[in-house]
Amino acid sequence: MIYFDHAASSYPKPPTVAKAMSEAVTQYSANPGRGGHKLAEQAKNVIEQARKKLANLFDAPSKKHVWFYQNATMALNQAIIGFPFQKGDHVVTTMFEHNSIIRPLEKLVKEKSITVTYLEPNEDGLILAEHFQNATTEKTKMFAISHASNVTGAIVEISEVSNIAKQHEIVLLLDASQTAGTIPISMENDGIDMLAFAGHKSLLGPQGTGVLICKSDFGLEPLVVGGTGTESELLHQPSSWPNRYEAGTLNTPGIAGLSAGIDAISEMGINAIRSHEQELMVHLVNAVTGIEGVTLHGPTDLSKRVAVISLEVEEVNSQEVAMILDEHYQIAVRAGMHCAPKTHESLQSSEQGLVRVSFGPYNTLEEVDMLVKALKEIKEAFM
Amino acid sequence: MIYFDHAASSYPKPPTVAKAMSEAVTQYSANPGRGGHKLAEQAKNVIEQARKKLANLFDAPSKKHVWFYQNATMALNQAIIGFPFQKGDHVVTTMFEHNSIIRPLEKLVKEKSITVTYLEPNEDGLILAEHFQNATTEKTKMFAISHASNVTGAIVEISEVSNIAKQHEIVLLLDASQTAGTIPISMENDGIDMLAFAGHKSLLGPQGTGVLICKSDFGLEPLVVGGTGTESELLHQPSSWPNRYEAGTLNTPGIAGLSAGIDAISEMGINAIRSHEQELMVHLVNAVTGIEGVTLHGPTDLSKRVAVISLEVEEVNSQEVAMILDEHYQIAVRAGMHCAPKTHESLQSSEQGLVRVSFGPYNTLEEVDMLVKALKEIKEAFM
Repeated sequence: MIYFDHAASSYPKPPTVAKAMSEAVTQYSANPGRGGHKLAEQAKNVIEQARKKLANLFDAPSKKHVWFYQNATMALNQAIIGFPFQKGDHVVTTMFEHNSIIRPLEKLVKEKSITVTYLEPNEDGLILAEHFQNATTEKTKMFAISHASNVTGAIVEISEVSNIAKQHEIVLLLDASQTAGTIPISMENDGIDMLAFAGHKSLLGPQGTGVLICKSDFGLEPLVVGGTGTESELLHQPSSWPNRYEAGTLNTPGIAGLSAGIDAISEMGINAIRSHEQELMVHLVNAVTGIEGVTLHGPTDLSKRVAVISLEVEEVNSQEVAMILDEHYQIAVRAGMHCAPKTHESLQSSEQGLVRVSFGPYNTLEEVDMLVKALKEIKEAFM
Repeated sequence: MIYFDHAASSYPKPPTVAKAMSEAVTQYSANPGRGGHKLAEQAKNVIEQARKKLANLFDAPSKKHVWFYQNATMALNQAIIGFPFQKGDHVVTTMFEHNSIIRPLEKLVKEKSITVTYLEPNEDGLILAEHFQNATTEKTKMFAISHASNVTGAIVEISEVSNIAKQHEIVLLLDASQTAGTIPISMENDGIDMLAFAGHKSLLGPQGTGVLICKSDFGLEPLVVGGTGTESELLHQPSSWPNRYEAGTLNTPGIAGLSAGIDAISEMGINAIRSHEQELMVHLVNAVTGIEGVTLHGPTDLSKRVAVISLEVEEVNSQEVAMILDEHYQIAVRAGMHCAPKTHESLQSSEQGLVRVSFGPYNTLEEVDMLVKALKEIKEAFM
């Protein structure tokens, strides 16, 4: 099986991930409470270590700014639904967002009468800082942006956008689900106010992990309230971080697995991973460009993309291409809409969907060649 | 190590739990999307099997009524914060609730001007159906109840309470975090409208799993919105179940582990687990009753309790007792407030907290005897 669906979830994981999870379940599956007994303390320590690794990796002020959720969607909901928007406030986002940003924003359009601008990409499929500048009004309170499109891989130059955000006192929320672990990110240097991402993609952790890192106190209302282990006498959610934003028992085995994933990417080096995946992407794009009837989408400047490539095979539905690749070639890709309806609207691919190919650190050039061969054969079979 | 903290999280888990999680991570860690490729299909199937097992176990209408969350707290928030309360609506709950019920309700008191009645237990520490009857008004829309107290183990006779709920068209939300897996529960026969519970307690699954089972459509607003894999073209959350209430990638390894936990308790038999834990409780209560200076809390009728026993050692702070048990005797218990401030208010133990002992299926009478011996020695040392 050749796995090219890393934009959805990475596979395989480093062996240390399953090992760390197994240890959490078999050796210290106690509730990571504060004190009480050794097993609870051990669970707590593993979580705090993971928090610290994430704070270091993304240059967050400290580990208490790092909050764990079940997925990036929930982290983004905490950031967007929890934000103290007032009626008439304005958000600038892009056509390249996942439903995990679109749906919370549209909910607030309906419930809180905020307004939202969806930025269109330029002719080469890129969204630039100047687009944000032009869309900013006096009412703009937030830029909510995917660092890279989960359909075309197009990267937004975040440090340029954050300069505009700073000038206008706009909060910058970055969805790094497609970039955390494959592009170096510094909240401090890149000017990111809130950073959300999945743990199970390029960070190589397990599903069940999502993270929001919040740089300053923006007055977020907790999305979920309940037990926090400490300050139990209060009938409302306590104000201390991270407790305020983490009600209920955390996913100790998942977080232990994520911690092992972070160690693995740190050992490989994010820049080395980026170079490797970039090489695979360049190889695929060059090879596919020569196949008549196969169309590539996304920026032609490959240095401005992560290794996510969407393509269509003329006159063959994307679902059918994916099915043939899966069944006849044992190649896993993802077809359809990729939970990004506006991206496909922008690419004019809403009808047929696209075939998305996405690479991870363990993929090889030989695997890419097999995909190219398969695409050629499929195209020929349908001609 | 003797582990008596099952009310917080069960330990050890059946070996099949870690095994199932490990398989999920090493063999099919793809995103459990709909279609696309075999690995994604496999992940999806494992989740749907778990959903079906839970629907069967709790007599739910079908598997689409079963929704996965990261913990019981989030499931309860979905049920309470998501409920279409109007200003002035009334909720009856009890003094025995965990903060995962108290804090969402108090949030709605503040934000939606609902009112809440907290029922006090009778002299023997039990909350009866007649208490609910007496508290019900024309404005009462919900009974929100812990099936059993996480401090005293006191059980609410839910089928009697549900009769009252039905008569007045009140929605019954049951928090079964202390009973799911140790007391047989039938949503159909017991008249439960919404059932929330943790997967990592008596169901023997891993942390990172919580469940809400919703019998009918009460018009719950989704707590989190975002990607659902299907109906991706919609800019708002789709109406189909379970998608409407499960935005973002699910915790596949956690759910696979929970599925293995359910198999394990089904094999042991819930009634057999209940009998075993009951035997341990009776043994402890009888033995401790003879120790001067050690006071037990909770109903004297042990048939109306789950195997959670809270006690205090005269003139010794509960945290100190727990620390001595942990360090000198390798016995894990939990001291303090147990995230249940009103329970401790009711028991007049808010100052010193209580030492909570809670049993699981793998505990033995010999282990209980060692605790009794330890408590005697601690008491003597402080006399």
